[in-house]
Amino acid sequence: MKVDGKHFRSIWFDDDSGTVKIIEQRWLPHEFRVVELIKREDFATAIRDMWVRGAPLIGATAAYGVAVQMSIDPSDASLDETWQVLHETRPTAINLRWALNHMRELLKPLPESERASIAMRRAAEICNEDVECNRQIGLNGLELIREIAAKKKPGETIKILTHCNAGWLATVDWGTATSPIYHAAEAGIPVHVWVDETRPRNQGAQLTAWEMVGHGVSHQLIVDNAGGHLMQHGEVDMVIVGTDRTTAHGDVCNKIGTYLKALAAFDNNIPFYVALPSPTIDWTVKDGVAEIPIEEREDAEVTKVWGKLEDGSVASVQICPDGSPAGNPAFDVTPRRLVTGLITERGVCKASPEGLAALFPEFAK
Amino acid sequence: MKVDGKHFRSIWFDDDSGTVKIIEQRWLPHEFRVVELIKREDFATAIRDMWVRGAPLIGATAAYGVAVQMSIDPSDASLDETWQVLHETRPTAINLRWALNHMRELLKPLPESERASIAMRRAAEICNEDVECNRQIGLNGLELIREIAAKKKPGETIKILTHCNAGWLATVDWGTATSPIYHAAEAGIPVHVWVDETRPRNQGAQLTAWEMVGHGVSHQLIVDNAGGHLMQHGEVDMVIVGTDRTTAHGDVCNKIGTYLKALAAFDNNIPFYVALPSPTIDWTVKDGVAEIPIEEREDAEVTKVWGKLEDGSVASVQICPDGSPAGNPAFDVTPRRLVTGLITERGVCKASPEGLAALFPEFAK
Repeated sequence: MKVDGKHFRSIWFDDDSGTVKIIEQRWLPHEFRVVELIKREDFATAIRDMWVRGAPLIGATAAYGVAVQMSIDPSDASLDETWQVLHETRPTAINLRWALNHMRELLKPLPESERASIAMRRAAEICNEDVECNRQIGLNGLELIREIAAKKKPGETIKILTHCNAGWLATVDWGTATSPIYHAAEAGIPVHVWVDETRPRNQGAQLTAWEMVGHGVSHQLIVDNAGGHLMQHGEVDMVIVGTDRTTAHGDVCNKIGTYLKALAAFDNNIPFYVALPSPTIDWTVKDGVAEIPIEEREDAEVTKVWGKLEDGSVASVQICPDGSPAGNPAFDVTPRRLVTGLITERGVCKASPEGLAALFPEFAK
Repeated sequence: MKVDGKHFRSIWFDDDSGTVKIIEQRWLPHEFRVVELIKREDFATAIRDMWVRGAPLIGATAAYGVAVQMSIDPSDASLDETWQVLHETRPTAINLRWALNHMRELLKPLPESERASIAMRRAAEICNEDVECNRQIGLNGLELIREIAAKKKPGETIKILTHCNAGWLATVDWGTATSPIYHAAEAGIPVHVWVDETRPRNQGAQLTAWEMVGHGVSHQLIVDNAGGHLMQHGEVDMVIVGTDRTTAHGDVCNKIGTYLKALAAFDNNIPFYVALPSPTIDWTVKDGVAEIPIEEREDAEVTKVWGKLEDGSVASVQICPDGSPAGNPAFDVTPRRLVTGLITERGVCKASPEGLAALFPEFAK
């Protein structure tokens, strides 16, 4: 999407320099840095140190990492070693493993001389497929926004609350939860976004708010505590969030705090939608609360907050006394009874076994 | 309560120095400063610049401010001017106005020669009355904790979630929501406190966590997003929060985010209690969501976070991009249907017109 009026993807092949470029996301929102990834180690660092994050973007970066390495050394040993080096960067990332396996299976049967060019073309396709998937999610979500707009006065603003960053920075472009919002904005529907800051890591404040500023979407940053009050007072027309994992029954695992917003939406009869690309559906899991283990992360994410000092430098401040331990569950599960619908690239369905099975009959059992 | 093993109140008359002392709360949790308030202007500054905060403590500070001024100049003009000077510091604080009116009505009929000593004695009594009120709240809440403990295995920990700081720092001692917790700890019941950080101003992280460290109560700091997940997984036995205003029908206005925790407690069948001194009941208001206007505070509270840098100095960091506006409602209202009970100094009652009327027949209409 746009940054100061110019269109960007989160990763792209730059024809002029002949290199892969990414937005180095660690410095956002305080500094917009574009960096070149030249060697395999650059790609490994970019994934490991979270210069890029978000499942689809990690997969795309890994695919380009393999491709670039093939242009340096297209041997079988090089291919296997690259799989290993990149896989170790974030071993639990599903999309990373998928992209690496996919590239290796594609390239192994080929003569070495053809590997670089085919790998580079396939990496670009993976990026385009992600963009197209998110575009479809956006078009399907746009219909829901249009339905809400149809019940309002002409020109009245649609107020949408979102949590965390399921934005274009987490994908190659469009994002998932943000894609309907960007599509509505481009269609001339007046939208206003309530951006949850999303403690502890503040991805909402750092990334989603930055996306909104860059693309010129009307928004306000709010603390994670505020959404319920806004819903009680008619200030939220719908909620759209992303998800890390959706179960075959429609439960939604997403950034910690999503469940609280779903409860408030339900209590105030406000539609609560989850936008997701179908590969994030885990067809092996049914009951999300009972079955999905939740990662417990380090105390420092809670006890410290990162940001920009008055002099423009960045630093972390400790917000609690020395000696206070923290608890830091990274995700929670929103039971399907609180979810109005799932917005996928194939369409919108009920958050239920039947709803998902109707859209994805080839996966449902 | 205790700070590093020594008992403190938040305000006290120090016999050795013959002065009123307070804990200067702006530097907590990073620095523990006790300051003397010598002149009327010191008291005005302490209230205006939030060296002290919390309705009961503001009232007590104002009472001592009047008393100290009477020892300097006990004239009618001095008394009236003191009312004016102190009232202007935080004009919307109900307890401030109550304490100032109370002192002026008490002192006006007295000869000037008696005013200083009687005022000083009355200020001390106001402090003691607050402590006694909170002690009663604590004893009543302790019974609820005992009931929960009785359903557990002997010695099993009772896990209590709290939001914001309804602690002893907001009162003269004990606090309101924290008083049952301190009483349980002193009674040898093992308790563990989940401390919501309470964005935007982080009173949980800064004050409640500091209280817990000082008094030696087992606790963990969590982000405001985490409580729902903890409740889903049986990690919370009860919620106790304070309140700024309770309606005659039992709706509870408290720090922003309280409503979300009440929803999660209700969804998981966890008792949700509100601790309050009866003067905070507003008998003129019934429907809290419809009738209570909610203060909208400045953007900077949301966009910036204050804390301690690595070098030990304190500073604020900006967490979002330049150019992101914020929304900052300071309070929300929890409808009574989500409240298990109200813990008052007279006992525990249902959050309902009937429940409140039974405990406070003289106020109920």
